[in-house]
Amino acid sequence: MATVGFIGVGVMGGPMARNLLRGGHHVQAFDLAAEALEALAADGAVAAGSAAEAAGGADAVITMLPAGEHVKAAVFGTGGVVEGLAPDALYIDMSTILPAHTDEIGAALKERGVAMIDAPVGRPQSHAVTGTLLIMVGGAAADVERARPLLDCMGDTIVHCGPLGMGARMKVINNYQAIALNVLTAETLTLAEASGLDVGVAREVMGGTVAGRGHMATTYPDKVLKGDLEPGFMVDLAHKDLGLALELAAQCRVPTTLGAVARQVYARAQTLGYGRRDWTSIYPTVRELAGLPDAS
Amino acid sequence: MATVGFIGVGVMGGPMARNLLRGGHHVQAFDLAAEALEALAADGAVAAGSAAEAAGGADAVITMLPAGEHVKAAVFGTGGVVEGLAPDALYIDMSTILPAHTDEIGAALKERGVAMIDAPVGRPQSHAVTGTLLIMVGGAAADVERARPLLDCMGDTIVHCGPLGMGARMKVINNYQAIALNVLTAETLTLAEASGLDVGVAREVMGGTVAGRGHMATTYPDKVLKGDLEPGFMVDLAHKDLGLALELAAQCRVPTTLGAVARQVYARAQTLGYGRRDWTSIYPTVRELAGLPDAS
Amino acid sequence: MATVGFIGVGVMGGPMARNLLRGGHHVQAFDLAAEALEALAADGAVAAGSAAEAAGGADAVITMLPAGEHVKAAVFGTGGVVEGLAPDALYIDMSTILPAHTDEIGAALKERGVAMIDAPVGRPQSHAVTGTLLIMVGGAAADVERARPLLDCMGDTIVHCGPLGMGARMKVINNYQAIALNVLTAETLTLAEASGLDVGVAREVMGGTVAGRGHMATTYPDKVLKGDLEPGFMVDLAHKDLGLALELAAQCRVPTTLGAVARQVYARAQTLGYGRRDWTSIYPTVRELAGLPDAS
Amino acid sequence: MATVGFIGVGVMGGPMARNLLRGGHHVQAFDLAAEALEALAADGAVAAGSAAEAAGGADAVITMLPAGEHVKAAVFGTGGVVEGLAPDALYIDMSTILPAHTDEIGAALKERGVAMIDAPVGRPQSHAVTGTLLIMVGGAAADVERARPLLDCMGDTIVHCGPLGMGARMKVINNYQAIALNVLTAETLTLAEASGLDVGVAREVMGGTVAGRGHMATTYPDKVLKGDLEPGFMVDLAHKDLGLALELAAQCRVPTTLGAVARQVYARAQTLGYGRRDWTSIYPTVRELAGLPDAS
Repeated sequence: MATVGFIGVGVMGGPMARNLLRGGHHVQAFDLAAEALEALAADGAVAAGSAAEAAGGADAVITMLPAGEHVKAAVFGTGGVVEGLAPDALYIDMSTILPAHTDEIGAALKERGVAMIDAPVGRPQSHAVTGTLLIMVGGAAADVERARPLLDCMGDTIVHCGPLGMGARMKVINNYQAIALNVLTAETLTLAEASGLDVGVAREVMGGTVAGRGHMATTYPDKVLKGDLEPGFMVDLAHKDLGLALELAAQCRVPTTLGAVARQVYARAQTLGYGRRDWTSIYPTVRELAGLPDAS
Repeated sequence: MATVGFIGVGVMGGPMARNLLRGGHHVQAFDLAAEALEALAADGAVAAGSAAEAAGGADAVITMLPAGEHVKAAVFGTGGVVEGLAPDALYIDMSTILPAHTDEIGAALKERGVAMIDAPVGRPQSHAVTGTLLIMVGGAAADVERARPLLDCMGDTIVHCGPLGMGARMKVINNYQAIALNVLTAETLTLAEASGLDVGVAREVMGGTVAGRGHMATTYPDKVLKGDLEPGFMVDLAHKDLGLALELAAQCRVPTTLGAVARQVYARAQTLGYGRRDWTSIYPTVRELAGLPDAS
Repeated sequence: MATVGFIGVGVMGGPMARNLLRGGHHVQAFDLAAEALEALAADGAVAAGSAAEAAGGADAVITMLPAGEHVKAAVFGTGGVVEGLAPDALYIDMSTILPAHTDEIGAALKERGVAMIDAPVGRPQSHAVTGTLLIMVGGAAADVERARPLLDCMGDTIVHCGPLGMGARMKVINNYQAIALNVLTAETLTLAEASGLDVGVAREVMGGTVAGRGHMATTYPDKVLKGDLEPGFMVDLAHKDLGLALELAAQCRVPTTLGAVARQVYARAQTLGYGRRDWTSIYPTVRELAGLPDAS
Repeated sequence: MATVGFIGVGVMGGPMARNLLRGGHHVQAFDLAAEALEALAADGAVAAGSAAEAAGGADAVITMLPAGEHVKAAVFGTGGVVEGLAPDALYIDMSTILPAHTDEIGAALKERGVAMIDAPVGRPQSHAVTGTLLIMVGGAAADVERARPLLDCMGDTIVHCGPLGMGARMKVINNYQAIALNVLTAETLTLAEASGLDVGVAREVMGGTVAGRGHMATTYPDKVLKGDLEPGFMVDLAHKDLGLALELAAQCRVPTTLGAVARQVYARAQTLGYGRRDWTSIYPTVRELAGLPDAS
């Protein structure tokens, strides 16, 4: 069993640390909020007086903090992790922070000879409690393996996404789609309601279409991801149909901002010559906008 | 078996009419494109010289045309459907058109005593061929039942969405989400690639999260659709995390236009006091923007 | 003095027709709203019973109607303009309609040998009253000259923008900038207020900068419109500074949707290699997105 | 004459420091880039070995650096300004940074008893050379007066915008409008060109309208800023006309992303009941979205 320093034992970090305790590990915790720290100590953790103290003698140190600035301060600030960390210990940042900060912290630790992985988590707080988080990990394979017994206490889906920083990137990018899709979903259901549709019927219909099921598992695998742009549904028609929806929304005064800007990307696909190709040509269209090389 | 007038036998209408023939129905077809018409005649349809002629003696007349203007011209123009239609025949528009046009056509036919349903189709052309379309139907229940034997030849999922015009609305709204989501998906995968992530890993991870699976079947049913806004993932955090993604995208020069505007809706949710409530509070936020009454 | 048929004598058309009367012209008016028609008749116009009757014997016929459908109906419908119009009369559409409708109406009239110009108006209703409208005209030069004595009664700024349809295009495009800029201005002033700035100070400062004075008369003429992209203010810095504003707005919860999407265009400029060029490189960036040929 | 420490003497800071020298002030400069520092030393400045050294014995210290992180490091880092600064000296940050960083730096300095003003600059680099910058200043009146002789060397328009942080806010907000407007202008001119309009004609027409002249000096002062929403041009019409422009753009495949999202705000104005009020009602609409109190 390992000795683990755990910095940041709040809404997410608290239950995660408890699952390490449950897994038989020794947890040395630190948090600026005394209450959270005491609660965890009551459950068997050692309450440390600083991040450095939490790191002292630990096999691994975990941070679970709100933003990159907090992580930097906890690691490099006065009384920070690096003051207490043993040279062969592993540092694991499980916070969701700007990936550039992850890179920066990793580089600074590397100069000191400290190994780091980034392992931010997905899924809501209830999964932190039950130890069934999704954990997206970046780092060297050997470091990920060292961490795995700990990660297994906290999550049931551990995905090694690539070298250091790729956990943070995967987390942020997964969130990008989920968070924006939330708005699109709300716009769609509101448009259904404002149009006089029964929202239950709308959900039932959409549950069986690409609208509800998403593109990654439906249209993309057999089309654009295989380089096939033969039209099942043409860009020109999608552009036209999106225009119909925006017009309907204008009549109903429902905000459809995401669709309004999405239509501009279909126009760009037309400019690039994809008008009579499959609507999944939006993928090479966006790749072109980003300056990525032509995949075909 | 019925006699069916079918106006518009192109990419979609052609295979749909063939499935009516296969079902044993008598099809009187018309299309401005001689080639498409001849091809269908070779398969057993009668080639009519006008929409009126196709409608003559028919139990039902179907239109499958590109836009509302075409449908209006085919129905009310010189040599149009109304010139040939028997008083007790049923008119079925399966085109995807502006719902306001559907309403308008239906009202004009009602004045002439003609019953109408709207029945636009979902899924790509291959499903038109195999008779497995999704058909979203609006109209009086009795009219929908009259049409069902015909619709069953063309589709395997027939959903009665409400009175006349609700088929058109359902179609347009389903498309709204699917067409905009295509752009969001392309932005997400492009951001993954530009960030150095393996796109296969990204797809795998997202396949198991709300990002890939959508909100309608995951987060909404047990939260906002039940009136529960207890936070699993707070609006404030979603707003912060979306900011991280936009910053990552800015560094990679990947267009993330949908996310950029989505973030403004999260800010609105904060203004409305939902900051520390569940992220599905975006649904009441958008409803409020549209002026819909508070559901709670 | 001319005999003028005038169809549509409401909020804008009424005062415009009055200015023709004041100019000594004979006006034959028609409007579906009896009240507006009677009011104009009281001021000296002849109230016609139909558009055709208003057009009978007229040297020119003017339409001032809400949308393209209304114009088409007034011209080609039963009792429409073409039923009454003399072969050598001039048709002038002053409505603001979709330019494609202008083209369509013009083409249909050309087949009948009728000359048409489009002449939509700018500036608010008070200018219709005082005869000081901006009139943007499209059509053959000779037709524009024939119309000029009439147009001079209604406006004080008559700009011949090109062949038929170019008046409509100019109007719609001028409106595009003015209507969207209204939102940008509101976002900016709201951000100032929410940030704690005195809005008067903000207006004073911006009144002296490109922000308040616009690009067309300040940055563009000496830079991008002359092909000069030497940096006075670099795209990279503009991209950075816009990021600061969006972050400030996120903290204040002020919607800055226009800026959020504008930033994506700066990222595209960077992708195209304009990062260290002048910020007016946004113009070739947008031209490239639209598929226009490189001007340099 | 004063002794001034000047940290950051690159593209903007270099010429600004030269104007202090020209004004007879003694300049102690520091920059991480040796070349820039040597060039300034050749013109009469003293090249310091650190920010602290530049600050030693100075009456005032100016920083002109790329971002908040750089400013913080230059002021509080090892060898930073605070190590050299005399207790009664004035600190002036002229960088364009996140206003929250300005607040943070000011608060930290206040704890040490050091007075600070923020004074970011507007206008391009050529104005830095000629000493005709716009300088937006935040700080206590007495501190601003102490700084004025220095600021007058560098700018010809010095605006005191409010307490500390208001210079940074004014700068960022002025930029917000100017930077986003650049994209709107490019979209508008590109749409003109793609529509077949002569761009010179388009510029001429727009130069005389709100489109080219902006709202702050034209429509707002006599309408919404006076609480007058009597319609000169109704929100409903603006919403309609913007729809025409977007449709024209869709036909021309010109990106009009800003207009597409702007239209959603007009829809919101309609939801709030402003449909038949003046289009400047967009201002209270956006204020409402931001949660600001009703001004009327």
